Amino acid sequence: MKEINDESIELIERLAEEHDDHAARREIRELHPADIAELLDRLNIKEAEWLFNLIDDREKKADVLVELDEEDRRKLLEHMEPEQIGHFIDLLDTDDAVDLIQELDEEDRDEVIRHIDDMEQAGDIVDLLQYDEDTAGGLMGTEMIEVNENMSMPECIKEMRRQAEDLDDIYYVYVVDDDQRLKGILPLKKMVTHPSVSKIKHVMESDPVSVRTDTPIEDVAIDFEKYDLVAMPVVDSIGRLVGQITVDDVMDEVREQSERDYQLASGISSDIDAADSIFAQTKARLPWLLIGIIGGLINSVILTGFEAKIAAVTVLAIFIPLIGGTGGNVGVQASAIVVQGLANGKLELKNAGRQIGREVIVALLNAIVISTTVLIYVLLTQPRSYAVALAVAASLFCVVIFATVFGTLVPLTLERLKINPALATGPFIQITNDVVGLLIYVGMATWMLSLIPMNQ
Amino acid sequence: MKEINDESIELIERLAEEHDDHAARREIRELHPADIAELLDRLNIKEAEWLFNLIDDREKKADVLVELDEEDRRKLLEHMEPEQIGHFIDLLDTDDAVDLIQELDEEDRDEVIRHIDDMEQAGDIVDLLQYDEDTAGGLMGTEMIEVNENMSMPECIKEMRRQAEDLDDIYYVYVVDDDQRLKGILPLKKMVTHPSVSKIKHVMESDPVSVRTDTPIEDVAIDFEKYDLVAMPVVDSIGRLVGQITVDDVMDEVREQSERDYQLASGISSDIDAADSIFAQTKARLPWLLIGIIGGLINSVILTGFEAKIAAVTVLAIFIPLIGGTGGNVGVQASAIVVQGLANGKLELKNAGRQIGREVIVALLNAIVISTTVLIYVLLTQPRSYAVALAVAASLFCVVIFATVFGTLVPLTLERLKINPALATGPFIQITNDVVGLLIYVGMATWMLSLIPMNQ
Repeated sequence: MKEINDESIELIERLAEEHDDHAARREIRELHPADIAELLDRLNIKEAEWLFNLIDDREKKADVLVELDEEDRRKLLEHMEPEQIGHFIDLLDTDDAVDLIQELDEEDRDEVIRHIDDMEQAGDIVDLLQYDEDTAGGLMGTEMIEVNENMSMPECIKEMRRQAEDLDDIYYVYVVDDDQRLKGILPLKKMVTHPSVSKIKHVMESDPVSVRTDTPIEDVAIDFEKYDLVAMPVVDSIGRLVGQITVDDVMDEVREQSERDYQLASGISSDIDAADSIFAQTKARLPWLLIGIIGGLINSVILTGFEAKIAAVTVLAIFIPLIGGTGGNVGVQASAIVVQGLANGKLELKNAGRQIGREVIVALLNAIVISTTVLIYVLLTQPRSYAVALAVAASLFCVVIFATVFGTLVPLTLERLKINPALATGPFIQITNDVVGLLIYVGMATWMLSLIPMNQ
Repeated sequence: MKEINDESIELIERLAEEHDDHAARREIRELHPADIAELLDRLNIKEAEWLFNLIDDREKKADVLVELDEEDRRKLLEHMEPEQIGHFIDLLDTDDAVDLIQELDEEDRDEVIRHIDDMEQAGDIVDLLQYDEDTAGGLMGTEMIEVNENMSMPECIKEMRRQAEDLDDIYYVYVVDDDQRLKGILPLKKMVTHPSVSKIKHVMESDPVSVRTDTPIEDVAIDFEKYDLVAMPVVDSIGRLVGQITVDDVMDEVREQSERDYQLASGISSDIDAADSIFAQTKARLPWLLIGIIGGLINSVILTGFEAKIAAVTVLAIFIPLIGGTGGNVGVQASAIVVQGLANGKLELKNAGRQIGREVIVALLNAIVISTTVLIYVLLTQPRSYAVALAVAASLFCVVIFATVFGTLVPLTLERLKINPALATGPFIQITNDVVGLLIYVGMATWMLSLIPMNQ
């Protein structure tokens, strides 16, 4: 199996300069569409177009299109006629076709769909376009093998042979009744082990795991992982089989979702990766940084009001970074636990109360350890400033409790509002807790100093 | 398909109190092993043991064991005889069996393996235990269908029927030569479309995607996603077929890896989730918080050396939180980009140089925007403190550059040292940049004030 490496990319780039179509064609003939796509992703648009047109077989061209990064696919499609795009879509699985069409501009879509020759394909695509992208309906394809429960195994295999023509591969065979309602699945194992059974309904696995077209993608992914599925049937509201979701699409979803969460947690606002343009990088990262700056400036305003105290008791300034930082760290931890629990199904909104209760206890434990440690440290290093020592310790205690509860509540609230809770982790929580922490500290310090005059 | 919900859990808990074995047995009879496992995970150990023993079929018991959370499985196995565990392992797929055995204490392992009746199974397991957990060999199982390239399709199907007996399901049929070397795969589609071909090597897909036993799991996952596979053959150093990796195991790996990275980025040191005990929660979270505290205390030491300056020019104290926070945020972003790029294969160590170069440019853009914004703000709000304004702006500029480069270098270095680069994101980078940022600020401020005396 030939794989892509920097050498093969340099080779292609050289061949592009030399316009050596023949050699380039030979280079890519043996490659898997995913590898050709990887090549194209690494070339500039001119070279990419040149190489794409050297792919001899149209099937393969279509597969390469699907495997490309969205960005590169857009560039490549821009220079194509709707007619040409339509022909490619003819060759794609319906789920890939729908994804591709959804990337086109509104006005081009109908134009492209009009150029799909296979009317059945076109019809399926138009139907699939109705579903929300984030539901099972938006993820499923209509390519699958479907047989009637009353068929005998030989009939079933004959029917499979007929339907298999336009399939890449077979995962399960779905068994339906005369009203098209999903009754069971027929694992391929059963076919080889029961070659001559009279009615397949006697050997099928009835009551299979299935989802409805309106099931959210997250739940679909959780079921795939829970039941170790390679494909899953999708039914409509009255249980009729309308499509199939395959594991490769689900795996992409899982990867994308966790990458999105991870980036949000790290203060990266839109989906980018190391290979993206420097402009894209800055665009995705600068906004959060500026929000962070605003947070820092709010802190400076708070401290301006505190300036007189600092002038009188400069020791107070020394512990400012400690307070804010701790609040930030605590909050990020708490929110990460919630975000992840919601993502992998271990935590459900209806158990929110229990979760908050547990977090409060965790917070108390952390708060006690942290504030006593720091209290001792400050008393030892600043022997004469009891007031400051108490202020720092007490502030840390409150900050840890507040930051934990806040970090737990925000993602839960976002989830209830149907906003991605991952937005809460990282910078947002960090900055809020930073500011609140400082407020608590300023308040505490002022109070303590009014109780215990500094003996300096 | 019956699913688990809070009601079903309460019901089981009530039946456990009433010791109503009959009703409980009826409740779980229809459930999928994964659902029974979910039930057990939610019960206390006493109830869980009681319910587990009510599962009538031993096959199903074994499957439930595999589906349990590691923690709960450990508890359940603790109270079992090695002999009993051995019998369960007899019924498991080899890859699951190996995972289960690896969770046992060293001394129990051999004891358990001795109680596996099926010698072939025992042999396979002992072989699999040799492989590193983080490689293809550690992930693969030996259950698969394997036929000779010179068989005719009818012979092949007969052979499949024989081998299918001890398989849960069939993904691909692997084709080998007389020396057991992998020659190709036979998609099931080919079997129904070419029922009577004389030699399957004429219809098989030759040169299939495969991995070696020593291929790291991350690379296996990348290949599964790239080529949309449901299963992948594993070969030894001379190309002989030794096992198969299935997509469900890979999906678990992808999920676990990204959850691990996400937790590390959020300052959670060991793998926990919302449902884990409060003790586990504290144990996983307190360490990073204490490291954060140490960082904060280091900052306080730095500021102690700076106390005189602050006493003279209290405005300096006002911008302390701004500097540290920014350094932290910038660093986390940069490291997240690297960690993710390494995880999904978009970034490779040999391109490290290019990545650093790109990051420097991104850093410059961010630094210019940030420091000018702040410079203007400070000049407006602190009209008479040019020195401070310049110190703050210049420090921010340096902090952003440093934090970005540092945040890029650390994960790249960890990767080279074969340590999980995700360790670098989150708290570690945050705290380091916080401290370094403060040092830069203190230095800058001292310098600027020596140049421009405050006109206060």
